[in-house]
Amino acid sequence: MDTVSTTRLRSDIEANAEFGRIDADEGRGRTVLAGTDANRDARDRFVERLADAGLAVTIDPVGNIVGRWIPDSADPDAAPVASGSHLDSVPKGGIFDGPLGVYGALEAVRALQDAAVELARPVDVVCFTEEEGQRFGNGLVGSSVATGRSTVSETLSFTDESGLSFREAFDRIGYHGSGTVDADEWSAWIELHVEQGTRLEEAGAKAGIVSDIAGITHCYADVIGSADHAGSTPMDGRSDALAAASTLVLDVESEASHVAAEESPTAVGTVGSLDVSPNATNVIPGNARVGVDIRDVDSESIESLVSALEASARRIAADRNVAVEVKRPYNVPPQPMAERCRSGLRRAAEAGGIPALELHSGAAHDTMNVARVTDAGLLFAPSRNGVSHNPREWTDWADCAAATAVLAGAIRNLAT
Amino acid sequence: MDTVSTTRLRSDIEANAEFGRIDADEGRGRTVLAGTDANRDARDRFVERLADAGLAVTIDPVGNIVGRWIPDSADPDAAPVASGSHLDSVPKGGIFDGPLGVYGALEAVRALQDAAVELARPVDVVCFTEEEGQRFGNGLVGSSVATGRSTVSETLSFTDESGLSFREAFDRIGYHGSGTVDADEWSAWIELHVEQGTRLEEAGAKAGIVSDIAGITHCYADVIGSADHAGSTPMDGRSDALAAASTLVLDVESEASHVAAEESPTAVGTVGSLDVSPNATNVIPGNARVGVDIRDVDSESIESLVSALEASARRIAADRNVAVEVKRPYNVPPQPMAERCRSGLRRAAEAGGIPALELHSGAAHDTMNVARVTDAGLLFAPSRNGVSHNPREWTDWADCAAATAVLAGAIRNLAT
Repeated sequence: MDTVSTTRLRSDIEANAEFGRIDADEGRGRTVLAGTDANRDARDRFVERLADAGLAVTIDPVGNIVGRWIPDSADPDAAPVASGSHLDSVPKGGIFDGPLGVYGALEAVRALQDAAVELARPVDVVCFTEEEGQRFGNGLVGSSVATGRSTVSETLSFTDESGLSFREAFDRIGYHGSGTVDADEWSAWIELHVEQGTRLEEAGAKAGIVSDIAGITHCYADVIGSADHAGSTPMDGRSDALAAASTLVLDVESEASHVAAEESPTAVGTVGSLDVSPNATNVIPGNARVGVDIRDVDSESIESLVSALEASARRIAADRNVAVEVKRPYNVPPQPMAERCRSGLRRAAEAGGIPALELHSGAAHDTMNVARVTDAGLLFAPSRNGVSHNPREWTDWADCAAATAVLAGAIRNLAT
Repeated sequence: MDTVSTTRLRSDIEANAEFGRIDADEGRGRTVLAGTDANRDARDRFVERLADAGLAVTIDPVGNIVGRWIPDSADPDAAPVASGSHLDSVPKGGIFDGPLGVYGALEAVRALQDAAVELARPVDVVCFTEEEGQRFGNGLVGSSVATGRSTVSETLSFTDESGLSFREAFDRIGYHGSGTVDADEWSAWIELHVEQGTRLEEAGAKAGIVSDIAGITHCYADVIGSADHAGSTPMDGRSDALAAASTLVLDVESEASHVAAEESPTAVGTVGSLDVSPNATNVIPGNARVGVDIRDVDSESIESLVSALEASARRIAADRNVAVEVKRPYNVPPQPMAERCRSGLRRAAEAGGIPALELHSGAAHDTMNVARVTDAGLLFAPSRNGVSHNPREWTDWADCAAATAVLAGAIRNLAT
């Protein structure tokens, strides 16, 4: 077993947690949106730590960062094994989501260096830009460019709410680089991430080996009624967009529960957002926008839930004197993980005596993109109470180290 | 019939509509929040017009404005007959809601002056501060002070969202006056207002004589669930605040529809606002705040709807693994109008040959407050398509003048 240093890993994650730090009643939080000062500081420190470990740093035009370690034993031209995650966060997020995978990959390299293992391939330690999609894009921004799903130029032209472009923001923080990060050139990829669920905790497992990443569809249903005076409009003369939207919310919930119970236990359907206009207590809502998130490892059940949503929208429009328009702006199909990577992880967990569980990922990760261009695997560390995107997000340091040891073993297995 | 000048009235309302004017795709809109520059400009012009008509102006500490006309025939110490409304608006409101009643009262006085009628009492033309309650208070702010429901000092200490106090804002615009406006001293009060409904239009009536103003209760239901990842939280492990809130929205609608159909046709129940947190498509909502508006002319049906809301909250908390807390911060009982005022209005409409309809008001008005301290009446002009709080709010100029003629006649009847 390659010796991972809990102290070194913890020190990196805690130092990184200072950037964008927020006050929290409980736990430890941070807000690190892409291209901000906090993001620059986090990147600067990461680049220093890569250099400290003797890795050669590349920064591409959208700010993806790669540190390459070429072991003496390796063919420098061989396709590298890559590992990493992201340093940005959601607003008021936790300190592990992203940084554990970035600094876990670096710690894995340092452990392999310390153990003087003989690897045949270089190892790339990777930080992707804006995985969370909270400022410029919809998420997985850097890995979309590195895997050819988005172009550099379209990404640079994204703008934030204030109208500032991605290019301006990254020029300003010094991470509009000139290098190239191309995931297609990697032999294999493994991402370490917190589970953001309770299955590992419930099973007493310390490592989650992901079989599939669920596909994700986002739909928006715009409900158009008529904003009228709550006092002077009789009950039978209303076109209430919120009451109609509420029916849609309950339909999404009941249909997803039905599919999960009867057809595909990994299926989920959520109305996460509901925006009401004018949203005044004394005015009948004239408009409501319902944001729906549908996921499963099985494409068929995703399509079945989208069809049910559309049917519900039609029924509500017919019944309730409102118009309902459903759009589907985001659709990423389910992504199975490569057996080669799963096996590399499984063997590493067994060798280290670390109890592992095979499971699916309901959350999206940069690995979804990478898996489309090379062999990819995803490794989970336990999340206390499943909490994530929250200052109460927590993974014990010993659990961080155990999962990182599995990562190091898997990199060794894949790069040998 | 006292001769109301459509031209003079229209000119006043159109000039007033310039203050806080907004661009609108259709119709004509304005945003005039209390204590803003637009509100100052509207007040300045109104005070000038009062002076032009020979009225003596009083401004009280919360910015209520009264212009007093003492006809030569009147006992200057007799209790005046008062009439007016408000000049503030909701954000992006229309040009008639408020100004018709203020400038209608002034035009009624000018018509009575022109006709040289002999009145026994003075006539007060009134502009109350912040009827809409969009900046400092919850509405009916000025009339609450003038009727002793609120104190001057508590009102002056209200703050807006930016932390600016009512006192600072009114000092700044020059309307923190030193006079006294006491509705208790009025012999009678009549407010002219747009209907904000379609009953007059449907009946072909030009004047609505209000029998009762509906009581209003506002309740807030705070639903507390757990904000979890939409992808990694299975359907059967959720505590979804929005799904629970949606059930509450539909319960309010169905219970109010039931009461209106079976018990009291004037009853209405509305969920006008719903605030979801964190309101991100990919996060299960952890919190939702439901804003409920319940109204009727019958107190019993209001109480029955509040009880039904509370029962629904308890049932949802028990069924759905959420906590629900219901608060009732606002409760104004129904208010019948004085027969003396209704009769004064009825006789004026008959004398003018103006088709009138008796009806209730579902909307609150300053008259609700005034009716608690003196005889009060409320007169409606037709609203095209019932639209209000919207740039499409419209009342034909001829209809404005017809209703103003009824107002003038009623003032004459009450002041003789």
